[in-house]
Amino acid sequence: MSNLFMQAAIEEARRGLAEGGIPIGSVIAYRGEIIGRGHNQRVQKGSAILHGEMDALENAGRQTADVYRESVLYTTLSPCAMCSGTILLYGIPRVVIGENQSFMGEEELLISRGVEVEVLQDPECLDMMRRFIAEQPHLWNEDIGV
Amino acid sequence: MSNLFMQAAIEEARRGLAEGGIPIGSVIAYRGEIIGRGHNQRVQKGSAILHGEMDALENAGRQTADVYRESVLYTTLSPCAMCSGTILLYGIPRVVIGENQSFMGEEELLISRGVEVEVLQDPECLDMMRRFIAEQPHLWNEDIGV
Repeated sequence: MSNLFMQAAIEEARRGLAEGGIPIGSVIAYRGEIIGRGHNQRVQKGSAILHGEMDALENAGRQTADVYRESVLYTTLSPCAMCSGTILLYGIPRVVIGENQSFMGEEELLISRGVEVEVLQDPECLDMMRRFIAEQPHLWNEDIGV
Repeated sequence: MSNLFMQAAIEEARRGLAEGGIPIGSVIAYRGEIIGRGHNQRVQKGSAILHGEMDALENAGRQTADVYRESVLYTTLSPCAMCSGTILLYGIPRVVIGENQSFMGEEELLISRGVEVEVLQDPECLDMMRRFIAEQPHLWNEDIGV
């Protein structure tokens, strides 16, 4: 089950890459169904806030707290401070991460606030990000505020 | 100077209220000039992520780290975990807050990471939020994930 959702997040990342964007994808699952999916839109929409996780949450639309509190967020890359803060805002209790070797986000903050964090170290996620960072370091730095 | 920027953030909040939305506004100032301004768009755009601060950052467009690191974010209300996380992502060094009595955001987290936080306890900001929360508690709760 978990792997199917991560596969959908990876598909989103690939779609972003094919569009000329940053290859990070995300999916929100509620009671075993995908309610939102998306990918980083910095290049495509000129967006400073649509990281993959944010795009998935935005595409899930307005939800009440009880939905978020039974949802799982899947993301191909360790969530940055913005995306982690959003997970905390909405009380999403569980986050499954493709990999955290090319970028380590705010996993410690999430864990300290009681969020369950699982890291898969998925080779495909890692390979996609490593290539991208090597090929477009300036774009990547812009995305993480460096 | 600081008050002029907060006045612009308050104007944004009023604009949001006039549109039937949640009255929270924000402005990003870089070297004394407004580079982005916005207001909460939950109602207007059906958005789960466009809090006032996020809308202002999105409207500022793609910026490099050196711009954010010399910017000040003004917001009529204490920034939630999402908006605080975004401030941390981009390394915005200073945040000026209209009030934190109707809602206390992640000010301690910001301060613990070295962000300078100033709270004005502006009566107009407080009055706008108190009225709004009393009139539309369900919408307000949705916005803060409660």
